[in-house]
Amino acid sequence: MACIDLNADLGEGFGVWRLGDDDAMLGIVTSANVACGFHAGDPTGLLRVCRSAAERGVVIGAQVSYRDLAGFGRRYIDVTGEDLLADVVYQIGALQAIAQAGGSSVSYVKPHGALYSAVVTNREQAAAVAEAVKLVDPTMPVLGLAGSVLFDEAADRGLRTVPEAFADRAYRPDGQLVSRRWPDAMLYDPAAVAERVLAMVTTGEVPAVDGTRIAVTAESVCVHGDSPGAVKMADAVRYRLTKAGIEIKAFC
Amino acid sequence: MACIDLNADLGEGFGVWRLGDDDAMLGIVTSANVACGFHAGDPTGLLRVCRSAAERGVVIGAQVSYRDLAGFGRRYIDVTGEDLLADVVYQIGALQAIAQAGGSSVSYVKPHGALYSAVVTNREQAAAVAEAVKLVDPTMPVLGLAGSVLFDEAADRGLRTVPEAFADRAYRPDGQLVSRRWPDAMLYDPAAVAERVLAMVTTGEVPAVDGTRIAVTAESVCVHGDSPGAVKMADAVRYRLTKAGIEIKAFC
Amino acid sequence: MACIDLNADLGEGFGVWRLGDDDAMLGIVTSANVACGFHAGDPTGLLRVCRSAAERGVVIGAQVSYRDLAGFGRRYIDVTGEDLLADVVYQIGALQAIAQAGGSSVSYVKPHGALYSAVVTNREQAAAVAEAVKLVDPTMPVLGLAGSVLFDEAADRGLRTVPEAFADRAYRPDGQLVSRRWPDAMLYDPAAVAERVLAMVTTGEVPAVDGTRIAVTAESVCVHGDSPGAVKMADAVRYRLTKAGIEIKAFC
Amino acid sequence: MACIDLNADLGEGFGVWRLGDDDAMLGIVTSANVACGFHAGDPTGLLRVCRSAAERGVVIGAQVSYRDLAGFGRRYIDVTGEDLLADVVYQIGALQAIAQAGGSSVSYVKPHGALYSAVVTNREQAAAVAEAVKLVDPTMPVLGLAGSVLFDEAADRGLRTVPEAFADRAYRPDGQLVSRRWPDAMLYDPAAVAERVLAMVTTGEVPAVDGTRIAVTAESVCVHGDSPGAVKMADAVRYRLTKAGIEIKAFC
Repeated sequence: MACIDLNADLGEGFGVWRLGDDDAMLGIVTSANVACGFHAGDPTGLLRVCRSAAERGVVIGAQVSYRDLAGFGRRYIDVTGEDLLADVVYQIGALQAIAQAGGSSVSYVKPHGALYSAVVTNREQAAAVAEAVKLVDPTMPVLGLAGSVLFDEAADRGLRTVPEAFADRAYRPDGQLVSRRWPDAMLYDPAAVAERVLAMVTTGEVPAVDGTRIAVTAESVCVHGDSPGAVKMADAVRYRLTKAGIEIKAFC
Repeated sequence: MACIDLNADLGEGFGVWRLGDDDAMLGIVTSANVACGFHAGDPTGLLRVCRSAAERGVVIGAQVSYRDLAGFGRRYIDVTGEDLLADVVYQIGALQAIAQAGGSSVSYVKPHGALYSAVVTNREQAAAVAEAVKLVDPTMPVLGLAGSVLFDEAADRGLRTVPEAFADRAYRPDGQLVSRRWPDAMLYDPAAVAERVLAMVTTGEVPAVDGTRIAVTAESVCVHGDSPGAVKMADAVRYRLTKAGIEIKAFC
Repeated sequence: MACIDLNADLGEGFGVWRLGDDDAMLGIVTSANVACGFHAGDPTGLLRVCRSAAERGVVIGAQVSYRDLAGFGRRYIDVTGEDLLADVVYQIGALQAIAQAGGSSVSYVKPHGALYSAVVTNREQAAAVAEAVKLVDPTMPVLGLAGSVLFDEAADRGLRTVPEAFADRAYRPDGQLVSRRWPDAMLYDPAAVAERVLAMVTTGEVPAVDGTRIAVTAESVCVHGDSPGAVKMADAVRYRLTKAGIEIKAFC
Repeated sequence: MACIDLNADLGEGFGVWRLGDDDAMLGIVTSANVACGFHAGDPTGLLRVCRSAAERGVVIGAQVSYRDLAGFGRRYIDVTGEDLLADVVYQIGALQAIAQAGGSSVSYVKPHGALYSAVVTNREQAAAVAEAVKLVDPTMPVLGLAGSVLFDEAADRGLRTVPEAFADRAYRPDGQLVSRRWPDAMLYDPAAVAERVLAMVTTGEVPAVDGTRIAVTAESVCVHGDSPGAVKMADAVRYRLTKAGIEIKAFC
């Protein structure tokens, strides 16, 4: 039987501020990309989400980011490899202790926001992220985009790479994501998204924005978590996959 | 033969800003209280000092603090026990990963600045610090002040407590430190400080500001690290102790 | 005809994070206590709320705070008067430029959260806030609690003081607010709160938690803005006062 | 008689951390580019340097930056024009109030570090900086690089632009600065730098790294302030210019 992992970004509040419905998402996904304090995530909130994830058997990953609370990690920062390596080590370690205090552990690493985009092509930053993961735990997989420079650098260091697809993002004919600056970057209809993800998982293909079919390799599907309809969409995806006999389980 | 540990605060720069002479201090002390990013310490600088400490065989401790870069952790913050616990877990974990990437590990925890002072008497905050250490690693000792509420709370949780004395701080007749707000709080003469520490280590006593002799229990002596004459003073202390046949070695 | 000012805290998001419904509140209050970036308020969000306030004729005040994004300014910080003075000057100035860019100006200052509570009794901090206001603009009024040390210090410097009452907070028999740590600190029924405010404005009295009637002097009533029912409650208060013939207008 | 302004970056510490010798530099330069808290500069330190500048008759400019304490504003950040505009307005306003509290005012704006470099070519960010200055005070000049996009955008808005040259930076044949990543980017010999500046001021030309002579238009010369030999070099420049009969005075 085919199986797939569902992942979402969680723990993305800060202090009094909340973002998304962590509790609802923890009932749907099998992997939680938990913020590490650099783009979001105060320690108390992180401990809370790690405890909930532990109780519900959801696997925890460290969602590492540029240091940018004001920009939510969505702005490219021209940080050196040396600084980025240390920033990523710091973040993974911080979440490891929080996850342990919450009764779990950190099982993988996924870059967030602008860093996620940068390490698709920026070799210095990609190498820094991969080296940081290796220094902390060489058995820890990296969740990201197939074909990215990050995956090259991770593979060079013997790290496992786990490719993911995006449930609600439009793809270009070359397999890259349509930038969020374009109006057609996001898909909003839960039913259509659910069918699309089912096709991805069963056929390994997805229609690009121009209608051509492109191959998408994925061991995990990202269902996000910070948009208003996130829970409904994630729920639709999970329901559709389950109904089609796909097993939903963590990749780790 | 008698032995004692010497500890100092290190890694207390941030970004371009430097504080103290970490390299020189690493040649003198046996335990380094390394900042964790909340009162000082950017990840790159922390990784640098942890690598140096590893190379020179200096034991690393996590110097946890209130979240207060602007105040260098020297201002009391009325944080709840719940938030402080998570803050301390986060900081220890961050430094654990940094220390590991630098070829070492975190062997103990010492609160910094205003938090150090607060947990002498503030039970809620002391319990939070002790509980945080226990959640991260119940075998990790806490370095602090004998008789503090922190030591009660740590002992209640089965944690090892390591009492320290201060080389260059004046003591009150009741065994507490003279507040830094008073002009006679600090001692500045390296030779006098060195003799004082030798007396502490060999007799377990030290003269208070009023001349009375008080008992000081210490497995470690803090020689600071951020004042202009810090290196010279630490060097004088180490030289004097060694000359008297005291072995200088880490408590851990 | 009697008149009263209604004030609320606005601009209290940060980056992607939002708090309260600023647009709705701007349709109800006559004075907006706008955050200044230390407990909340990124510049883009502050500019947006200042523009809206300008368009709708709502007067802008600077809601100054301790530097504490993680704690939303709700934690007492033992900052020196020297540092607090500079922090307050900095915040007022930042908001002055933002308000001007938004087509308005800063007309008064109100301390936020833990600083608001501290300056009721802490003379060093109260003097720092008052001195900061005087240095920036000696004609700028201070909004706060009648009988507070802040009002003494402000009056000593020739500043105008504007006393406020709280619509939804319970009062102790001595005229102070019941601490938020107590279960009966907050009032939640919009209709009851509206009647209470009307009584305050027309009789100058309000029942304390023990039923005794106490005098409350107020030129402004704070209707908050960050609780779930804030808009409904503020609306009820405004409606009730208007219906009773009270004019709602800014104190400035 | 010819005259020239000398400017340097000041107030670039943060909390306990100091950078450069502000007092010494204030005895040499006629314009102080004072940090505004985003790359450096805590309010207390900023107030101190503004007071000193006021006492010594040194003109104050706002040195605005990306929000990046950890990177000292030296890392390019892909911030939107909307956010950058608000960030710059906020910073200028904050320093205006601080300068006023210190007995002076803000007379010009100069971008710092990576922002300085970005606005040479990045139109969106350059427009944001220029628009921010215009919104705060359309009579306030912008100090920067002749030929930069920032100067175009500033001129389009009717702002005065003040071109500066760099005392200790090497120039490329095209008139741009050699990047700091190259070993020959900086000049270190005070006597040679002093002669170079004198030539700049009197002939309007300077030798590029390849020996060709290039034209440099400057109403101000930046003598920096954060390198170890900064004071000595600035002093040599001032002495040489004065000896040659050049008047040193603020451009404003």
